[in-house]
Amino acid sequence: MGRATDRRGVLRIDLDAGGDRPTSVRRGDALAVEEPLEIRVGMAGPARRRPLTVTMRTPGDDLDLALGFLLTEGLIRSADDVHTAQLCAGAETPNTYNVVDVVLAPGVPEPAADRNFHTTSACGVCGKASIDAVRTRSVFNVTDDPLRVPAAVLADLPGRLRAAQPAFDRTGGLHAAGLFTADGDLVVLREDVGRHNAVDKVVGWAVRERRLPLAGHLLLVSGRASFELTQKAWMAGVPLLAAVSAPSTLAADLAAEAGLTLVGFLRGRTMNVYAHPQRVVD
Amino acid sequence: MGRATDRRGVLRIDLDAGGDRPTSVRRGDALAVEEPLEIRVGMAGPARRRPLTVTMRTPGDDLDLALGFLLTEGLIRSADDVHTAQLCAGAETPNTYNVVDVVLAPGVPEPAADRNFHTTSACGVCGKASIDAVRTRSVFNVTDDPLRVPAAVLADLPGRLRAAQPAFDRTGGLHAAGLFTADGDLVVLREDVGRHNAVDKVVGWAVRERRLPLAGHLLLVSGRASFELTQKAWMAGVPLLAAVSAPSTLAADLAAEAGLTLVGFLRGRTMNVYAHPQRVVD
Repeated sequence: MGRATDRRGVLRIDLDAGGDRPTSVRRGDALAVEEPLEIRVGMAGPARRRPLTVTMRTPGDDLDLALGFLLTEGLIRSADDVHTAQLCAGAETPNTYNVVDVVLAPGVPEPAADRNFHTTSACGVCGKASIDAVRTRSVFNVTDDPLRVPAAVLADLPGRLRAAQPAFDRTGGLHAAGLFTADGDLVVLREDVGRHNAVDKVVGWAVRERRLPLAGHLLLVSGRASFELTQKAWMAGVPLLAAVSAPSTLAADLAAEAGLTLVGFLRGRTMNVYAHPQRVVD
Repeated sequence: MGRATDRRGVLRIDLDAGGDRPTSVRRGDALAVEEPLEIRVGMAGPARRRPLTVTMRTPGDDLDLALGFLLTEGLIRSADDVHTAQLCAGAETPNTYNVVDVVLAPGVPEPAADRNFHTTSACGVCGKASIDAVRTRSVFNVTDDPLRVPAAVLADLPGRLRAAQPAFDRTGGLHAAGLFTADGDLVVLREDVGRHNAVDKVVGWAVRERRLPLAGHLLLVSGRASFELTQKAWMAGVPLLAAVSAPSTLAADLAAEAGLTLVGFLRGRTMNVYAHPQRVVD
């Protein structure tokens, strides 16, 4: 519970270290921990909470992960919609604490029994339908957010994110999501084997700290910008999403539609702005 | 349909190209296409096929993607279990061809109505339970596969994969999965915004070509090795999975349990072997 890395034995092979033949050395190596987390949701009372989803995640900040997932999927709108959220025992011995049990506040609609999260993230069958589906669920409007960030500040953020990643350097296997102020100060950083989980953990932190909407902030992700990550940024009211790597077409289209600034390939001293560049200034 | 990249307008900012101020240039850029694909499954006859999942994927090889998904989830065991699979119209005009309709052969069990694919990939709530769940569904045993691959051949594969990736160089945004022989010859390569989709497309190709199990072959993925990708390799009978980047703990544990060789950090002239190193030889 809460351990981001664990050791495994590994055979390290180097083709150039020795003479004619490869050298191989047995050693221990730190790996990013991946375990399933089941999120159960329901109402208070004796009825059992129903499993909503299972996500493969790196243990730690699991309550935030659950809250962030529920918010970005449109099932809750703030911490007020949650009565209790607790880590609880699965069926295993010893207890793995790989279940989060969420009790919704009275009056908050329970998710439909046939809800499929692959489906709800993209509930149409074309990109436009997917964008429409997100628009109907987002409670925050980022279009008029006055955030302005100098390009030079943006260029420094990947280095700041990386410097603050406690587990990446040991494993090379964790995605990171960082929330920054317009001045480039890191507010919160989360790591996970799943990039969507890293973002959900940041958003869940903001739910718990009652910081939503995240107006005036920007979110940086260590990998690519997909439709799903752009959707999560919008649902949390973040006006600028930056990615170290490439965006997809649907991410760019959703950002353009949402009024959200999308920066990609934020590397070294260059970057590409795919939507609403007015927030990136000299 | 079938288009892996599309153009979008972008503002390219360079902090060092000009004098004191950043330069910015408007230009067109190729992005990796991301669109939802709905997979519907059912029996022949007038009854409507039921939506099974929606995945965010790069269009192209969609039938293979569906077949590979069904096989790696344990719903079909070979092409004989499929009566027909066809791309068909969604509700949109113009037709987006973002639906694959699969009719199962008579006698093949339909998936349960409450099947949740986040759940089935990890149907326990601890790692051990997840590994047990995969073991019960895998029809191929890779433990005794006699594949042997020289380390020098492995070291060449990332370069071969990259050289054969038609869309990556234009977008920087696509994962790749490549199936190779023990001699390092590329058999089939697929790209996708989702790394699991790239693997499903390779496996679906093998289903359609009746090449399963993929004994004596190895699978290379351009990113990290997760539990899910290791599961897919095992379900297809691949005895060696190699990844350019890091594996997770659960990927290493599943590979060890399955008798599957897992290679990570396959870069330059070095690599790490996390399970069953006997297949990597001098």
